[in-house]
Amino acid sequence: MRTQVGIIGAGPAGLMLSHLLHLQGIESVIIENRTREEIEGTIRAGVLEQGTVDLMKATGVGERLSREAHFHHGIELRFNRKGHRINMHELTGGKNVTVYAQHEVIKDLVAARLQAGGELIFNAGDVSLHDLDTATPKIRFRKDKAGELQEIVCDFIAGCDGFHGPCRAAIPGTVRKTYEKKYPLGWLGILIEAPPSAPELVYAHHERGFALLSTRSPEIQRLYIQVDPTDDIANWSDDRIWTELHARLETDEGWKLIEGPIIQKGIIAMRSFVCDPMQYGRLFLAGDAAHIVPPTGAKGLNLAVADVQVLARGFDAFYKTRKTELLERYSATCLRRIWKAERFSSFMTSLLHVNMDHSPFERGIQLAELDYITSSRAASTSLAENYVGLPMEW
Amino acid sequence: MRTQVGIIGAGPAGLMLSHLLHLQGIESVIIENRTREEIEGTIRAGVLEQGTVDLMKATGVGERLSREAHFHHGIELRFNRKGHRINMHELTGGKNVTVYAQHEVIKDLVAARLQAGGELIFNAGDVSLHDLDTATPKIRFRKDKAGELQEIVCDFIAGCDGFHGPCRAAIPGTVRKTYEKKYPLGWLGILIEAPPSAPELVYAHHERGFALLSTRSPEIQRLYIQVDPTDDIANWSDDRIWTELHARLETDEGWKLIEGPIIQKGIIAMRSFVCDPMQYGRLFLAGDAAHIVPPTGAKGLNLAVADVQVLARGFDAFYKTRKTELLERYSATCLRRIWKAERFSSFMTSLLHVNMDHSPFERGIQLAELDYITSSRAASTSLAENYVGLPMEW
Repeated sequence: MRTQVGIIGAGPAGLMLSHLLHLQGIESVIIENRTREEIEGTIRAGVLEQGTVDLMKATGVGERLSREAHFHHGIELRFNRKGHRINMHELTGGKNVTVYAQHEVIKDLVAARLQAGGELIFNAGDVSLHDLDTATPKIRFRKDKAGELQEIVCDFIAGCDGFHGPCRAAIPGTVRKTYEKKYPLGWLGILIEAPPSAPELVYAHHERGFALLSTRSPEIQRLYIQVDPTDDIANWSDDRIWTELHARLETDEGWKLIEGPIIQKGIIAMRSFVCDPMQYGRLFLAGDAAHIVPPTGAKGLNLAVADVQVLARGFDAFYKTRKTELLERYSATCLRRIWKAERFSSFMTSLLHVNMDHSPFERGIQLAELDYITSSRAASTSLAENYVGLPMEW
Repeated sequence: MRTQVGIIGAGPAGLMLSHLLHLQGIESVIIENRTREEIEGTIRAGVLEQGTVDLMKATGVGERLSREAHFHHGIELRFNRKGHRINMHELTGGKNVTVYAQHEVIKDLVAARLQAGGELIFNAGDVSLHDLDTATPKIRFRKDKAGELQEIVCDFIAGCDGFHGPCRAAIPGTVRKTYEKKYPLGWLGILIEAPPSAPELVYAHHERGFALLSTRSPEIQRLYIQVDPTDDIANWSDDRIWTELHARLETDEGWKLIEGPIIQKGIIAMRSFVCDPMQYGRLFLAGDAAHIVPPTGAKGLNLAVADVQVLARGFDAFYKTRKTELLERYSATCLRRIWKAERFSSFMTSLLHVNMDHSPFERGIQLAELDYITSSRAASTSLAENYVGLPMEW
């Protein structure tokens, strides 16, 4: 088999890249080790930057999003039992916070790729990369996990296979530098059947820990509380979860949390990670394969989409002019914006969580930061412009 | 002896308070354990917030400042061998960075107090506080260190005696909560005889450590480099200091550091400190007696001046109406703004210094923060509004 760009991974990065390349007349094949049902059913992030929304609309995959997503003008920061609205729409000159689940984005992109005759190979096994430093890098894999070993000869390979995939590891350790931080923080997330308790997302800082109120649909809500990342979900009865949510989200302003049946629960750990460079020979990493952010800044999916926009431009330039300049700059171009998103995600995480290792002075600084951000237009604007997404850098 | 407000300490806080009270027709006596020559000759901070300048001008002690101070419209942040100007004047709607040394402020205030017949007792010994929880608190001291013990009976005592004075310790430990951070950072400061090397202050972040270029006059410059706070100044020959300054301040843009004879050098440690409450009975703390900031944010003197503005209003309300409400709110009113200044000072310190304990990830975040601040108008504005001084809160 032969293709121009072999894409490993059918997450937001891989699917969006394949979609963008198709629009540029560049052919690609996506190899994904999970089934279509798995990728379309896994609940992950839910907040889209304005740039992600604009791109989906501009490239013809925003129709259902326009109809079904929740477009919020702001978020609420809650601390000291009081809410403080950050009006992002107004502070950023009209940009929105769009709540639309990652698996819905994936469904839309899969549908668009299939409709356009795109080649998506799900449930692939033993995916491996070869000859990355030649002009004909290759992907090998087995169909349906167990079939015969097949090979795709490519011009380029895009590594969009997430944090645990094989692509990043295919860059020799002597070439790749990694930056990492593990947080002593976890999020216990639940899905509940209930109407929303608030019109917009609520990020609550409380001395018992962080809590986040988010929505998936008028009937399904997503809520999180900060817990020890090594804690066992078995220690968390529904009652205990509700007690914490009420305590952390309660205000002096008569706000009420609406309960409902908990239909899913789990604990995730938090990590920051950056791989530099994101390119080796003819392999280009994008999305979680190259970088991880803690979820507090809602940046993960959006960074993946930003990466592949830069990458698609690079491939476009290559196939139109045979110039490799943009592709050579790919890693540096992406990393500058990625590091800013890492900064913001790390900042939001420190701002909102309770850190048991903090001294009373550091705790005082944290409360002063919340006070400052919610009382200064410049500081609110800084938070808002990062949350809705910094401008692309090319 | 009897007075309305007994003021301990003739630093910026004590002198400005006495000056403001005089303008309100309230009498005060200042007790200072150093000589006039000492307080007028000690070189300390040098940057005034716009609010400090406005207050000096509005209260008739700004005449020499208007003539001799340097009014800068911005500062330069320098990193990766490149300068980035923060135009504070433009970002804050016309506020300036005023460079005018603390001992010059002190000279102006001492002169004004003496001219108005104010009572300043220098070189006092054995200063102690008594009966703070009564309506007649008292200050005892010896004239010229060795004289007979004298007593001043006051309505109120203002503790403006700096970090090491007796006032804060007069608040019982059970009442007072302290917040503290010691940094593994020191500043080696020098005074040199040379013209300025740059038109505005330069804050340089370099992998060898922070450096700061500041000015005192057209002939005298003040420069700092980050060093280990436990280092001995004897380890720092003039040559070694110049080598570091050149390395840390050098740019790719052809900028040149002008050398000159080093006429003074010393190493200072850095600390953040907050005492809460700042009041106990009839004792009110102001300035360094209640809080310390690392010098990176240039906030120390300015916080002292802000405190005594709030305090003077409280005394004014008391003597005019016998209402104690403003005085009772003094501590809470000041602390809200103080914590924001602590936040900013701590932020600027982390932003600009090299922290040997940082992981590569944290180092990456620091560089991303510098990149973000100098490329976002909102973030530049946030830095600028803090640097020129947040609005007073009453």
